[in-house]
Amino acid sequence: GWSLVLMSPGTTSHRDPPPPTTPLNMYGKCNHPPDSSSSCNRLGFLQKNNSLEERSRIVSSFKERAAKNLLSCDNIGGDARFRRTETDFSNLFARDLLPAKNGEEQTIQFLLEVVEILTNYIRKTFDRSTKVLDFHHPHQLLEGMEGFNLELSDQDTLKYGVRTGHPRFFNQLSTGLDIVGLAGEWLTSTANTNMFTYEIAPVFVLMEQLTLKKMREIIGWPDGEGDGIFSPGGAISNMYSVMIARYKFFPEVKTKGMAAAPRLVLFTSEHSHYSIKKASAALGFGTENLILLNTDERGRVIPADLEAKVIEAKQKGYVPMFVNATAGTTVYGAFDPINEIADICEKYNIWLHVDGAWGGGLLMSRKHRHKLNGVERANSVTWNPHKMMGVPLQCSAILVRERGLLQGCNSMCAGYLFQPDKQYDVTYDTGDKAIQCGRHVDIFKFWLMWKAKGTIGFEQHIDKCLDLSAYLYNKIKNREGYEMVFNGEPQHTNVCFWYIPPSLRGLPDSEERWERLHKVAPKIKAMMMESGTTMVGYQPQGDKVNFFRMVISNPAATRSDIDFLTEEIERLGHDL
Amino acid sequence: GWSLVLMSPGTTSHRDPPPPTTPLNMYGKCNHPPDSSSSCNRLGFLQKNNSLEERSRIVSSFKERAAKNLLSCDNIGGDARFRRTETDFSNLFARDLLPAKNGEEQTIQFLLEVVEILTNYIRKTFDRSTKVLDFHHPHQLLEGMEGFNLELSDQDTLKYGVRTGHPRFFNQLSTGLDIVGLAGEWLTSTANTNMFTYEIAPVFVLMEQLTLKKMREIIGWPDGEGDGIFSPGGAISNMYSVMIARYKFFPEVKTKGMAAAPRLVLFTSEHSHYSIKKASAALGFGTENLILLNTDERGRVIPADLEAKVIEAKQKGYVPMFVNATAGTTVYGAFDPINEIADICEKYNIWLHVDGAWGGGLLMSRKHRHKLNGVERANSVTWNPHKMMGVPLQCSAILVRERGLLQGCNSMCAGYLFQPDKQYDVTYDTGDKAIQCGRHVDIFKFWLMWKAKGTIGFEQHIDKCLDLSAYLYNKIKNREGYEMVFNGEPQHTNVCFWYIPPSLRGLPDSEERWERLHKVAPKIKAMMMESGTTMVGYQPQGDKVNFFRMVISNPAATRSDIDFLTEEIERLGHDL
Repeated sequence: GWSLVLMSPGTTSHRDPPPPTTPLNMYGKCNHPPDSSSSCNRLGFLQKNNSLEERSRIVSSFKERAAKNLLSCDNIGGDARFRRTETDFSNLFARDLLPAKNGEEQTIQFLLEVVEILTNYIRKTFDRSTKVLDFHHPHQLLEGMEGFNLELSDQDTLKYGVRTGHPRFFNQLSTGLDIVGLAGEWLTSTANTNMFTYEIAPVFVLMEQLTLKKMREIIGWPDGEGDGIFSPGGAISNMYSVMIARYKFFPEVKTKGMAAAPRLVLFTSEHSHYSIKKASAALGFGTENLILLNTDERGRVIPADLEAKVIEAKQKGYVPMFVNATAGTTVYGAFDPINEIADICEKYNIWLHVDGAWGGGLLMSRKHRHKLNGVERANSVTWNPHKMMGVPLQCSAILVRERGLLQGCNSMCAGYLFQPDKQYDVTYDTGDKAIQCGRHVDIFKFWLMWKAKGTIGFEQHIDKCLDLSAYLYNKIKNREGYEMVFNGEPQHTNVCFWYIPPSLRGLPDSEERWERLHKVAPKIKAMMMESGTTMVGYQPQGDKVNFFRMVISNPAATRSDIDFLTEEIERLGHDL
Repeated sequence: GWSLVLMSPGTTSHRDPPPPTTPLNMYGKCNHPPDSSSSCNRLGFLQKNNSLEERSRIVSSFKERAAKNLLSCDNIGGDARFRRTETDFSNLFARDLLPAKNGEEQTIQFLLEVVEILTNYIRKTFDRSTKVLDFHHPHQLLEGMEGFNLELSDQDTLKYGVRTGHPRFFNQLSTGLDIVGLAGEWLTSTANTNMFTYEIAPVFVLMEQLTLKKMREIIGWPDGEGDGIFSPGGAISNMYSVMIARYKFFPEVKTKGMAAAPRLVLFTSEHSHYSIKKASAALGFGTENLILLNTDERGRVIPADLEAKVIEAKQKGYVPMFVNATAGTTVYGAFDPINEIADICEKYNIWLHVDGAWGGGLLMSRKHRHKLNGVERANSVTWNPHKMMGVPLQCSAILVRERGLLQGCNSMCAGYLFQPDKQYDVTYDTGDKAIQCGRHVDIFKFWLMWKAKGTIGFEQHIDKCLDLSAYLYNKIKNREGYEMVFNGEPQHTNVCFWYIPPSLRGLPDSEERWERLHKVAPKIKAMMMESGTTMVGYQPQGDKVNFFRMVISNPAATRSDIDFLTEEIERLGHDL
């Protein structure tokens, strides 16, 4: 089910017959021995009825098509270059691409065809007249994919995907499609190396080192000193922070296990991200030893509650080891008061981690960075450029104030992986700091964007997103049919609200009203996805029934898109 | 230091003046307020002397260049399309790209320019007359990058990188550059979504589900039943296996921590990958509770040693919980005898994990899959398509025989992340199975390659690599100046050998000889990297001094490249 991957969206006229119901041979439909010159490993992009063709015909058909359609000089600058409705690779064999002898021509042509499809997709992504998604239920999509069969009907990976860069996609904390970042990702995948050693990734390893230093400077650690690493996402970054804290206070746990430590307890807000809880479970603390802190009406930790619970834990004989302060909670976008929390951590000698996965980006804004005041007092910070800063997924950093802990915590000094007798300075081999072995290159796209936009470019983007959320907040706070989940201007771009359909507006504040309201957001969201016009998330939180959580990190979004969203909610929800 | 990213390799004529020594303003050289229409966030690709230019001139210069150079129809098929030596984006501003108004033209052109550079790189990667790398020491590269300064001198990310797809790159377990996989990765990054929920990645979520099932079928689990997930690498996959095993036997650890379990011990071979040790440390077992198993001369676990150590642990009151059997060790390429190990695991009720990160690919080969006989008896299997199967990094799967454990172990049921009241079947939302929250899309490139090559295509690739390693083994096993680290034909593509320079050949088997031999491989490797002609790894192992470990997973490699490697080792090592 992937042939339409390489067809233009919407083209479904060449459906193949339904998949056979007989079980698949493990080697596909082909039973020839591997060395036979059969056609079984034909590139499956388009399974048409073509039989085996001569090599020369393939090349000439490519040339012909290229001359007619692809990137034709006459058409550059006009829409003509998007006119082609179908890309036919039926005569192309995977084995004809490089490293095949004389495979260069076909390889380049193949990649250019792919790029044409991708640029077409990008063009549509930013076009407000296209849908955000073309929703199908799992069973509907599976019909075309089940069986993993080369003869399968067409599907279009891009067509049935979600345009996360669409100006009206507001569903996740990571939205938007940054073109410079995308170029960086294409280059990264072409380089196809990993961050294991300087030997195999010299430039990327240095870029990571310099970028982490820059991030530490922005946090406010003197001279950008400290340590850090890019990890496969904020959850893993947060997991690192707990591991490093444990190593700092109880290094013997590394060799002897949790039995070597007293009963350790961790603290985080009831509004914090579930990755802290996942880390508690995975690392052997147990989720019951993660103590949830009360928050104020805006979702911010109440420092007095932290101190009370620290004292209570100590009285029970437990050892308070780790506090997570969230800078930008997932739902409310709340910033915990870091300075007051830091005071308590210093008083009781507890590791302070700041989870700035979502809110860390605000450090780039002179206008908004005060919301993270005190972050320089943290022992570690999670900061995901792939969220508020629009870097393509995945790009998350864990930053550590004290140098050496990451290495001490994770290194196993495997001589067969890290040879000390290399000709270069092996302190640049960062692999042993990680819990991973091979590690994806997440740095280049970020580096490239930073170079292209400058810090000021990130600042402008962040300020604009926060302006847009203030616009939304001011628009709906007193508007009929809307109710805010909490009062006051949002700290981050999260705007949390209920839409109250006319049928519910007269109801008294009763359980029945809340029960009915609980069902409104899911219904609107379902209709929204069916119509594919926009996407925004909803969820319950604590004792609050389902509400919409609008977040804005998409650089393509404008006030008109915000207006569109509220109109769409009102249109879909009016008769509920 | 990245302007040359977008210049052809080797072009270094436009060096900028040395970086200023004054400290950088956090916002770069620009002190304008964010809303000023200054030129500070000019795309930094090439920092020339051009001042601000009109939009129209930019477009026309693009068109002009395109007509002259880029993908020109007249030149398609000839080398002329690579003649251009420099790509000048000095007039391009990041803010002029989409979502900028009328940014479409410039966006498409920009991406096409990037692709031209990438295709040029790809062409050179497969060209044996180019170097594998152009080595520079960290301090040399840093000279151009330090300070993170927009005014910096040119560097070329691709130029100073390592061509991991070069036919003579043998340094890692992951080598080669698969064109279809690359296209898949470009598409993945353009789609820029994550595997969190069906809602935002419908097609990729289903592809993952179908592919995991197919892999479980190949392992031999009835009807491909079971569970699994793609993770950011083999180390994380192995970590999952330990977590799941613990959850199976001691589910209360999730809530109560390791204190709720007796002293648990894990077993793995002294030749196994260090990720098992990393997992022991991270998850709170402690590395001392990971018991290393003795191996035979070929690096395979001795089952009797496992049983003896299990009994010993039980006698001490410890609980043997987890055994890792490696299918394809990192250095020797050894396959532990899974069936005999499985017998012991069944007898003592221990979780059996098979780490097939490196050797799992052999399951695709009818000729070689017998080396993993018994794998269907494992409780969990790690299998990295990004290693032996040539899928671009990262692509690693953890497969679990019993359904439900992954979910039970990791789920936190956060209602604000996973809404149960969606309109589709939310069992497709796999996010809560993972220790991650957002998760990179690693499936599409693999899916596309499988479709394009078929199982038979992977089989041919694997058989060819093993044939090549047999060729190398047979060539050097009795050749003067070579000594094998262990006897007999390698089980995987790992060929481990010492090169003995003429000056050492007469020496008796003494400590002095081994000490001198220990220094030979590092010296040859250093010279090899300086000359950039080929790359192969070396390391010590146990009491064996530094030796070369040749591995072949590169689809571009041929017998002539193997011959080249031995000639190069002899050329560089002859006078040591």
